[in-house]
Parts: sequence; C-alpha cells; structure tokens
Amino acid sequence: MTAIEKHPTPMGFGRMHRKEDVRFLRGHGNYVDDIVLPGMLHGAVLRSPHAHAKILSVDTSAAQAHPKVRAVITGETLAGLDLAWMPTLSHDVQAVLATDKVRFQGQEVAFVVAEDRYSARDALELIDVEYEPLPPVVDARHALDEDAPVIRDDLEGRTDNHIFDWEAGDRARTEEVFAAADVVAAADMIYPRVHPAPMETCGAVADLDPVTGKLTMYTTTQAPHAHRTVYALVAGLPEHRIRVVSPDIGGGFGNKVGIYPGYVCAIVGSILTGKPVKWMEDRSENLMSTSFARDYHMHGEIASTKDGKILGIRVKVLADHGAFNGTAQPSKFPAGFFGVFTGSYDIEAAHCEVTGVYTNKAPGGVAYACSFRITEAVYLVERMVDVLAYDLGVDPAHLRMRNLLRAEQFPYLTKTGWEYDSGDYPRALRMAMDMVDYDELRAEQAQRRELNANGESGDLLGIGVAFFTEAVGAGPRKHMDILGLGMADGAELRVHPTGKAVLRLSCQSQGQGHETTFAQIVAEELGIPPDDIDVVHGDTDQTPFGLGTYGSRSTPVSGAATAVVARRVRERARLVASAMLEVSPDDLEWEKGRWFVKGDPEAGRSIQDIAMAAHSSLELPEGVEGHLDATCVYNPPNLTYPFGAYICVVEVDAGTGQVRVRQFVAVDDCGVRINPMIVEGQIHGGLAEGVGMALMQVMAFDEDGNHLGGSFMDYLLPTSMECPSWQLGETVTPSPHHPIGAKGIGESATVGSPAAVVNAVLDALKPYGVRHADMPLTPAAVWRAMQGRPLRPDLAIT
Amino acid sequence: MTAIEKHPTPMGFGRMHRKEDVRFLRGHGNYVDDIVLPGMLHGAVLRSPHAHAKILSVDTSAAQAHPKVRAVITGETLAGLDLAWMPTLSHDVQAVLATDKVRFQGQEVAFVVAEDRYSARDALELIDVEYEPLPPVVDARHALDEDAPVIRDDLEGRTDNHIFDWEAGDRARTEEVFAAADVVAAADMIYPRVHPAPMETCGAVADLDPVTGKLTMYTTTQAPHAHRTVYALVAGLPEHRIRVVSPDIGGGFGNKVGIYPGYVCAIVGSILTGKPVKWMEDRSENLMSTSFARDYHMHGEIASTKDGKILGIRVKVLADHGAFNGTAQPSKFPAGFFGVFTGSYDIEAAHCEVTGVYTNKAPGGVAYACSFRITEAVYLVERMVDVLAYDLGVDPAHLRMRNLLRAEQFPYLTKTGWEYDSGDYPRALRMAMDMVDYDELRAEQAQRRELNANGESGDLLGIGVAFFTEAVGAGPRKHMDILGLGMADGAELRVHPTGKAVLRLSCQSQGQGHETTFAQIVAEELGIPPDDIDVVHGDTDQTPFGLGTYGSRSTPVSGAATAVVARRVRERARLVASAMLEVSPDDLEWEKGRWFVKGDPEAGRSIQDIAMAAHSSLELPEGVEGHLDATCVYNPPNLTYPFGAYICVVEVDAGTGQVRVRQFVAVDDCGVRINPMIVEGQIHGGLAEGVGMALMQVMAFDEDGNHLGGSFMDYLLPTSMECPSWQLGETVTPSPHHPIGAKGIGESATVGSPAAVVNAVLDALKPYGVRHADMPLTPAAVWRAMQGRPLRPDLAIT
Repeated sequence: MTAIEKHPTPMGFGRMHRKEDVRFLRGHGNYVDDIVLPGMLHGAVLRSPHAHAKILSVDTSAAQAHPKVRAVITGETLAGLDLAWMPTLSHDVQAVLATDKVRFQGQEVAFVVAEDRYSARDALELIDVEYEPLPPVVDARHALDEDAPVIRDDLEGRTDNHIFDWEAGDRARTEEVFAAADVVAAADMIYPRVHPAPMETCGAVADLDPVTGKLTMYTTTQAPHAHRTVYALVAGLPEHRIRVVSPDIGGGFGNKVGIYPGYVCAIVGSILTGKPVKWMEDRSENLMSTSFARDYHMHGEIASTKDGKILGIRVKVLADHGAFNGTAQPSKFPAGFFGVFTGSYDIEAAHCEVTGVYTNKAPGGVAYACSFRITEAVYLVERMVDVLAYDLGVDPAHLRMRNLLRAEQFPYLTKTGWEYDSGDYPRALRMAMDMVDYDELRAEQAQRRELNANGESGDLLGIGVAFFTEAVGAGPRKHMDILGLGMADGAELRVHPTGKAVLRLSCQSQGQGHETTFAQIVAEELGIPPDDIDVVHGDTDQTPFGLGTYGSRSTPVSGAATAVVARRVRERARLVASAMLEVSPDDLEWEKGRWFVKGDPEAGRSIQDIAMAAHSSLELPEGVEGHLDATCVYNPPNLTYPFGAYICVVEVDAGTGQVRVRQFVAVDDCGVRINPMIVEGQIHGGLAEGVGMALMQVMAFDEDGNHLGGSFMDYLLPTSMECPSWQLGETVTPSPHHPIGAKGIGESATVGSPAAVVNAVLDALKPYGVRHADMPLTPAAVWRAMQGRPLRPDLAIT
Repeated sequence: MTAIEKHPTPMGFGRMHRKEDVRFLRGHGNYVDDIVLPGMLHGAVLRSPHAHAKILSVDTSAAQAHPKVRAVITGETLAGLDLAWMPTLSHDVQAVLATDKVRFQGQEVAFVVAEDRYSARDALELIDVEYEPLPPVVDARHALDEDAPVIRDDLEGRTDNHIFDWEAGDRARTEEVFAAADVVAAADMIYPRVHPAPMETCGAVADLDPVTGKLTMYTTTQAPHAHRTVYALVAGLPEHRIRVVSPDIGGGFGNKVGIYPGYVCAIVGSILTGKPVKWMEDRSENLMSTSFARDYHMHGEIASTKDGKILGIRVKVLADHGAFNGTAQPSKFPAGFFGVFTGSYDIEAAHCEVTGVYTNKAPGGVAYACSFRITEAVYLVERMVDVLAYDLGVDPAHLRMRNLLRAEQFPYLTKTGWEYDSGDYPRALRMAMDMVDYDELRAEQAQRRELNANGESGDLLGIGVAFFTEAVGAGPRKHMDILGLGMADGAELRVHPTGKAVLRLSCQSQGQGHETTFAQIVAEELGIPPDDIDVVHGDTDQTPFGLGTYGSRSTPVSGAATAVVARRVRERARLVASAMLEVSPDDLEWEKGRWFVKGDPEAGRSIQDIAMAAHSSLELPEGVEGHLDATCVYNPPNLTYPFGAYICVVEVDAGTGQVRVRQFVAVDDCGVRINPMIVEGQIHGGLAEGVGMALMQVMAFDEDGNHLGGSFMDYLLPTSMECPSWQLGETVTPSPHHPIGAKGIGESATVGSPAAVVNAVLDALKPYGVRHADMPLTPAAVWRAMQGRPLRPDLAIT
C-alpha cells in the first residue's frame, strides 16, 4: 500500500483533493433520505407480482382503515387527476399506477402514504388486487411473432409489439462493398440487460406548500431542470412554483435521469395530505423497476480483404425496450449507436438497422454508461474485429493497428455523418502495447499454450485488445434532443466584492467531483484559488436552466460554459481595471489573477481588487454595468470524442471456467485533464464496471417473466477482489472546438473495457475453438463455451 | 365602511391586490422569529444601565454555571477573536460588546447563549458587572464644551466629541444676498430624536455549519448583500460561504439597515456552540438601542424681498449622532440634507453647515424615512417659509405659490449641484388648495378667530401648508456611497420553458409589496401575467448583488433594473421569434405578449411559445445563446425627485392644547404609478407617521442620560384614532431618466407631512403670537407654547 499522495492546491488545472470529500468523508453528505421535514409522511409502492396480467379489481378499504395510513392512491385516484399516465423521456407514455393491466413484474399498482415507513409497507399487504394472468413476452426475438400477445393495447391502434425501425448509412454502397470483399466475418451477439445499481437508490421528498402552492421536490435526479419542466407539463403545476432540489447523489450512471412513478405519487401524496411525503426505493425495487440498460440482440458483419484491410461494417439490431419506452431512446433514433458503430476504423461503407420492440420487462433505459447505445456499438465492433482476426488467423492488435484512423484524417466524418473531432489512435494503441510489453505477452501465451496442450498447466492465458471512440457531451441539436428542450446548459459566475466567487451550473453531480473540477476551471481562467470558489448545482431555484448530467456531458458542456463565463468575467475585469489604472483596455495584459499595464508589470490590479472596485463608486467606462458577473448558455457545436486503447490480460482456469484479470492497461485520451486525480478515479470506476459486465452482471428473466436479479445475491457487482491494480496511460489530443480542449471521461472506461475483457477471455479459449460467447462470462458460461454449448445470458441460466 | 374594491389582475400597471397578502392574511408569513432549526439555541444581551461608565470588572462565573447555559460571551471573548469592535456603516467603529466603557444606556455588555430564551434571560441576571459611573453628555449643545467628558476615548488622539464639520453651497454669495435682502427671518428649530419602531423588532438566527464552514444568517436586514460583505470583512468569514437570508420582514423604515451587535454575537455564539443561535430583541431593546433618527438642532435663516420673493437660505445644524456613528451618515456628507435644504423654491443663493457630535445616547441613524436627512431639511425649509409668512404677514400658501420652481425650470440644478429631474410644482399646490377649498377654509378660520376673540368658541382652526421635494433612489455614485460598495442594484429575469418567469432582485421587501409591484413591471414589459411571475429577494444565495431597500430606492433603482432586464428578454425573444417565423428581426413588431410580422398580425408568436422554442432544438441565429434570460446591474444616472403639496387642517382645544387633525389633503407626484393601490397605502402610512412625529413621538432623555421612551406607554405612536380619512390627489410627471418614469413613494408622506401638521397647529396658535414651537406638539407643548414657555422636546419634559 502506498500512502495517499498529498497534493497542494493548484491555481487551476492539476491534482488536488476533492473539495466535497471534507463533507463526504465525515459522513456529512446530505442525501435525499437524510432529509427530514416537519410532519413528513412516508410512501410505499405496491408492485405487480406478474409480468403480464389484467387487473380485475383493487380493494384498498383495509389499507385505508390502517390507523397510521393517511392516503391510499390507486390508478383510479390518478385518473381523476388526469395523472394515471405520464409521458416518458422517450416519446412514449407510461402508467404511473396501472389501471387496466400490469405489463412487467414490479410495475407500480398503488401507493400508500402513512405516518412512518413501516406502516406504509404494512398497509401494502392490506391492498387486495385481483389479477388475471396473461402470457408474457419475455424473449425479444419472439416479440414480433404473429401470436405474441399485444403488450401495449393501451396505445390506440396498436396490434403488435413493434416500436420502430430505424436505419443509418448507405445500404446500397455497403452491399457493393460486401459483395466485393474477400472475407465477410459474421456473428450474433447479445449485449444482455444490465442495471447500473447505484449505491443510493431512487427517491424523493415532495413538499407542496398548501398556502403558496409551491412544490419543492427533493429528488435523486440527474437532471433537475428537465424534471421541473416535465412536472409542470405532467402535473399541471406552474413551473415557477416548482423547485427541484437534487442534493448529494449516491451515484447515477443514467439510472437517475428518468422520472419514475414513485416521484409522481409522492407529489400527489403531498397534495392530498398537505404534508411532505418521502418515498425511497429499497434495493429490490431499484433493481426490478428502474431503468435498465442494453438488451441489444445484434447481428454484426465485417468485410475485409484477405490481408486484413477492413472495408465495411453491417449491423442489425433487435432492441428490447421493455414494456414502456422509458429513457430507452430519448432521441428519435439510437443516436450514439449510429454515430460510432463503425468504431475507430477507416472504412469505405457501413449500414445499420435497429428495430425496437416491447416486451414484458421493466422499461429500458439508455442508462448505465454510456449514452445512447455507444457501449453496445463499441462492444459489437470490437468483438467483430476479434472475430475477423480469428477468421483470418491474424493478431487482433496488429489488425487494429492496420485499420485505425490516422492522426491526419481528423476531423473525420463517419459514414453516418458524425464528425470525430481529434485523435491520434495508433499512438494510443502503441502506448498500450508498450505498457504491457505485447510481444513478450504473446510469447508467454504461446509458451503456455504449448504447456497446456501437454497438460502441464491449468491456467489459460488470454490477451484482449479493444480500441474505442466515444461520442459524448450531448450534444449538438442535430444529433439529439431530449424532450424537445434543446441540448444547452447554463453557467453563471458571480465574483463577490471581496473576490470570492460562486459558480452556478445547470448540471448535477452524482459523485463526480463537480465542486472541485469546475472550481479549477474558474481558477485556471481567473486566478482565483479553487477554495475561494463555491460551485452550486442541483437546485433549480439557484441555477440556470440546462439538461443536466448524463452521457459524460458535464465537462464537455457545462465545463465549456464555465470557461466561457470565466473569460467573460475576465474581460469585464479588464474594463474595470482600465478605469482603475486610467489606461485603455487595449493597454492591459493578463497574467493569471491580474491585469497589468503592458510593459509595466508593477502597474497592475489583482482580480480581488478589481472585484471590490467593480462593486464600488468607481466611475466605470460607458457600457460597463458594474459588479463582476457573467452568464452563458452553451450550445455545443459538436460532440467530443474521447478514445482509448485497452489491453486486458486474463488467466482462465480451464477446469472451472473461473476468470482472473491479471493485468489491465488503459490508455485514455479525454483531451485536456482538469484534475488528473479525478479523471483517474473515473477511469478506475469504469474499468471495474467493465469487468463486472464482462464477467458477472446480468439481469435475467425466467419464461414467466420473473425477474431473477432482485438483490445483490443474484445481481453480481464487481468488488476490489475482482479487479487488478489498474495501469493507466494517457495521450492528450485536445478537442479543437471545446474552449479548454476537454472531452469528458465519465463513461470511457465502461465503454471500452467490456470488449477488452471478453476478447481476453475468448483469446484464452482460442485453443478450444471458441469464436464467440456472450457476456457475462461467468465460470459456467466459460466452461459451457469450452464445451461448445454456450449459454443464453438474457434468459434463465439453464 | 365601504367594501374592499375587487380589482381584476391587470396585464401590467394598475390596481391589483398584493400577491403576498395571500400568505400574510392567512398567518403564513415567515418572519425571523418563526424560524426554528434543529438544536437551535437562544441568545440574550446584557445591557448597560448607565449612559456613561467605566467597566471595572465582568464576572460571568455564575451565569456559566447555569445548567442551561451553553456559552457566555463578553467583550474579552470577542477581543480574543479580534471582534470586540466592528466598523459601522458610517465610517466609525462600534463596540460589539463593551470592554472599556459603556457609552449609552442599553449598550451591549455580554451575550448569553442558552437552551431556551427564558434561561438566557435568567442567566443575564447572574452576570456581575462592576461600573464606575461617569458624567454623561446628554445635550448635544454642550457636547463641545471645554469641560465635556470625552466619550470616544477609544479613538486614538480624540480629545473632544467633535465628529465632523461639513458645508455646502456658496458662503460668500449667500452672505451678499442676505446683506442685500429686505427681510431676514431666522429661527432655531429642533427635529427631535425619534425611532421608527417597526412592528417586528430586529433579530437573527445564525447557523454556522461546522463541516462546510458555511454561515447562514437569517436576519431582519433591509440590505442582505451589504450585510454579507460586512460580515466577510468583520468576521473574516469567506464571503462565498456566507448566506444572508432576510425572510418576511415586519417593517423596516431604516431601522433594519444597520448591523447591530446582537447579530455578531449570534454568529459568534453559533461558532462557539456549533449550533444555530437565535437572537430577537424585545420591544424595549429595540426602542433603546437600535438606530434612532433625526436629533438635529437647526438654525435656519431665510432672506426675501419685502413683498415675499425668497432670495436665499442659510442653515446651521448641530447633529447629535449618539455614542457611535451608526448609520447616522453613511455618506461622507449629509447628502440628502445638502441636496434639498433649499426646498422646492427658486432662490439665488444658499449655504449650509453641519457639525456632528458624539453624545451619550444610542447610535443615531438616518433611519426612519426619509433618507440621508431629507426629512429634517424639508421640515426646516417648510417651517421657515411659514415663519417668513408670519413675519411678512402674508398667506403661507400664496407665499409658496410665488416662490415655487416652475415647470419650465426643470431639470433644475440646485445651488448645491443636485439636479431635480422633473415636476410641475404650482399645479400640485393648486390641486391641493382646490381639494380643501382653500379660500373657504381661510374664511372659516377668520370667522372662528373672530368668535374666539369674543370667547364664543373653544376650538382653534389651523391650516397648514407644506410643499416638499424629496431626493430618492440613492443614487448616483457622486452623491452617495455606502461602505464603498457603489449604489447599483442587480436584477435577473429567467423565463422558464413553459413561459412562467422568475425575477431575482437585490432589493428586499419589508412589507412594501415588492412581489406584486415588480411582477407588474415585468408583466407590463413582456405581457406575462403577474401571477406567472415569481419575485425572489432577500436571499444572497438566490439574488444578484445590490445595496438593498432603503431611501425609497426599490422602485427607482431595482424597478429600473427590472424594466431593463424585461426589455432585454423582449429583445432576445425577438431574435428567437425571427428564427421561428423565418423573418428578419427588423420585420417583427411587438404588442404586449407577442412578436408578430409587420403587416401580418396573424403571423406571430406568444412570449410563452417563444420561451419554449428558446429552450428547444430550434436553430437560433448567430450570437443568440438560447434560453430566455437576462441580467442587469443598474447604476442610477441621477436620483429621482418625487414631490407633493400637503394641506392639513387641525382643530386645537385652546383649553387643553389637544390637537385634532380634521382634514388632510395630500397631492403626491411620484411619477408613473405601477400599482396605485400600493402607492396609496404607502402614502397613508407615511401620513400617519407624520402626524405621529408632529404631535406625539419623541425619544427624550433625562439629565443622567436615562432613556425615557423604552415602551409604547412612553413612546407614543399614532393609531387610526389620531388619523383623519386621508384625501389623496395626484399629478404625474414621469422621471425623464427612469425607464418607466417612476420616482419612488415609500417616504414622501413622512417627509412632507410633519411640516404640514406643525404649520397647521402653529397657524391655529397665531392669535397667541406663537411664531414657532418644536415637535412633538403634545397637548402640554401646545398649551405651554400658548403661554410663551415652550418645551424642550429632546430632554425630559419638565
């Protein structure tokens, strides 16, 4: 163990300990469940035990009679308020409380408000719901069968479970390229349903002031402003009388983007009782009913010359969106997937089709890094390159090196019209290969295989390579638009008279260290120490409008807004300084923290002195209003494209199928790093998640639609025991269109690492003739793959 | 009784019921004393029983031993924190808790923090302070005597009680004019010490978070941002870690501008105990120790031709500022006094001198409408004009009419360089004279006097006329500057996606109806209904910096800022609308609430539709950032100058000296009226205050410096019983430099009415040869004046 390195506070970018950790490490975080308001009541949700059933009757009389129950809310109650159904973030509607049918196991049927949490839970058992079970659709591949039951018969005119067909790329050109290719490698792959499982579950305290009519909604949301607008539109409350506060959040990973029925029920509970109402999910509720991720059934094809020049990529996806299109596809198309499904490679043609279907599962989400199906796309293409390498019998790292985009090709327009902003891909891959000593590793592997063939060693060695390009910082309006609310984020910077500052942001932190990172951006631009800058977020009463934090967009969007407001303040300070020094603004020069007269460095004023003067009786130049504030609404002109080269080394026990990650090298390029320590922390977390998805995490269902991952006994998350000591490398190619050249790092490792781990395991199994096997590669799955009888990860493991 | 008139909500200016009254009338106001925080402790102040005494020792051991006491703070405790003395808002320092001496009766000596208010009070009696009494300075006219004790021996090098000598005007020219004049009328007048006595006393809840170090200060301040900066400078807390919240405030009248020792003690109490500490004054504490007003000993001279053309005015003032220069003169000169001491008249020359002295009384303030000594100046000049009329034997209304500034003289530069912005003074006076039927009244008076002379009627009839010009909306930096913090106020307007809006202001309401008035300004400019606009103020975390509410500056300064931000939003909306309608912005025309294409009124977009589009994926024109927000920091280019003509009719019981106000006509011109109902309410309140000051209110002291007005039994406030049914008239001359032409109305009536009432009483007493008598004209004072033995109002009434 090395001691934690102490970092002096830098005046700008650099390593420093997180400002928020003083609070968190002393146990003084303020999470939704820490909030206690006078007279507060507690809510609990009654959930469906069936995946698909008609509701024949709901009898709440016994629950109503419970002495501590204050209100029982059913779909009927809500229907009276025109609130039984709510719009989702994905162009669909979702039942707040089911009235006609239940459509997934765990669906919300009733909501009890009681004086304490225990009584609320007890009273749920007093509600008598009569169900008539219906056959469920569990396997997406049968969702469009002639005889499949129609799940969404609530939607007018709906006679099947089809949601959409979308496509991107040039079909004809791709067909030509494939027809002319020497080799076409094809494979079917599943990216199974997983759940982000943040440490804190979802919840809210709804507090409607019966006198002023103002609703304060303390909630675990990643997007407070968007939620406010939706509450205004859904519940008919005037938007200026809604305050959404998302206090400290214990992890989001996309799970906390959507609006869940419990939130709406808490609001209705507060309206009905005139008291604050708290609702917090327990772990099972979070795992069973909040937005899932992935669940993509993919068919990939890759065309190449016989010597390994990749020519084209062709993909067909069947997307299982569950019973409601929750946050499954906030854009009108699977934006991220279409953007990056050709990966990091220089190809001639590509085509992609995605079909979305309803099934009797909880509503799907884009949730769980990375945004908009990028994780699925990167996984597919990186597996397909390995499949091609397998078919061609070439080294997968060398195959990649041959086909990667070269530095001089940037900005690079993909075959679907996305513009990768900057990069030097071969340099990153070379760095990763150097860090693991690739040739030496391959030599070790060859030696081991020989020993294995002779039965002299139990452990198989696998080397997995993956290269990824991510598209984050959603995003220019042409690519995506959630709720029709644009994709801009706001920032406001106010420098107080004494030179201390407050930065107000529309984005929200779920633990990423925003209070530190954004203060450092201001420090870099203005020379105010980071400790003198407070970052305020997560409160719609205190912050400008914006779309919030998801899809690694905080640094790309809010970070850009922060740099812009800081520069605006700097320019305003220049004008004030010119009045103080009685010189023309053009005669002033900036050095971090002060303006001084060109050629006379002694004649200067610090930003703190300027702040006081801006609030004083100093006569300011025409057009300068005084004070030292600025605002910005930042519309990103493009996405940013972080990338990376990952190499994973595994050892597989040939007898049990058990996988051990021996080494993991991650070379990331997220452009300029503001606080390298925070960046590295984000990468560490993402790598662990990748190991989890590759080796253990999956939400499976049985044939009746029963959810088989309702606790951490069944839904396995990686711990430090499963993780190696990560080895990180970095290259820095700044984003050319971002004010400080940063690209965002929140999801990179989650995107890049699953393919690296899976490729490593399958590389280890190569001697057994295994060309592909689906995640998660549990010991059983590995062992079965070695037997040539692969498991279906998305259904009950049998 | 007439029923309360119902007013439909106007889309802009006009009568509407106050939005805040829903809250207030149901008892749901949230005042500082309503705030209860978990674990909150209570503070109480130990006060000096002496006006002037050495402190020999302070023994707190018995108080410390009280089982419910958590902390006892003395001057010594504070000295250890470098907090024993604090700067005042008036270029002085004040003891937070006395260490060396006490300098006025009621001065703060110790502060006890206990578990409840009762224990805190009980423990005060356990503190043993040994005093050595010193002779006090009570009469300001002896403050500069050779043998006067030096009060402020804490100030280095101070050997007397002199604070300042200031002068304004042209002494030589004034002497010439006076030397050449036919007539010089001179008189000595006292504007005695009075107290604003707001319904709610001062107080605070200080809550220092021991983990984050953030101080939240709930306090009854009229100027939250200025207080925050002062706390930062005084207590050394970082300004960005201080939040000052002034919630609902029960009246201010200037009493709540200053920082009182109790606030600082509450903060220190919270730091020492780690708990929130509440401190609320009781009524006596408020009356005895918080900032007083007036206490001006004035010598006025007025020069005129023998036929009543006023030529010059000369004034000498001895100003009693008490033991500390509290908020007595926030500017470096008695700005308002110098601005308007020549009144509303066209004169050739003027000169004024003011000398400030310390006395052993509570720290003085400008507090109690109107700002910066304008009330004193107006009272003096209006009394002097009546004295001149008395000396010349002419009608005081006619004398005024002859000398008033004429409409064509505006903008008018006074002899001390202030620029009266607009007015038509004779029109206002004529209107007032018409409203009372002046000639008929005078005829009635003549008739009565004849009857009185014959002993046939007991009641004397008096007609008092006063004209005033006020200078409000402080103010351009050249005239005044508090704390060196400039005189600007900020406004931020945010229109949410659904078209509801929030306006954030640096000013603060103490009951003036800001939530309504400012919403109406936005409604007028944008066509958003006032109910759709929330006004946020009184919270430094939620509002831009600004100097706050006092001196009638909210409408002149923050009102202007509001109009400007609303217009900026309107222009931003024009650009969004041009993108929506695909026309040039120049082709659009505004009508309240929408932009439409010139010549095609059907082709338009409402402000609500524009708001949603501004937050959407609509492609906006170059340079338009999206959303629909604006900010403004408003630096008033000039003060605004409301004015008015008041006529008061009194009946005086010649036997008892009892005065009854029979009629009061007030013609006010405050420029454009935003909500006439609120304007009239402000005038009603001010007129009542004027009656109070003229007839009953005074803070007197005995020869030992004992305060004789420590309760409402001794310090008399007017009630509805003393007030007539006010008759209001109005003229409207908009301020030319204010965006909506408003001038401010908060203090006009308090400024104008005392002279009208006093003039009326003295007019009634004319047959008794009474040329002048000082306020308050209590029955005793009137009776004594009739005997030729006037009372000294500022000392014990003997």
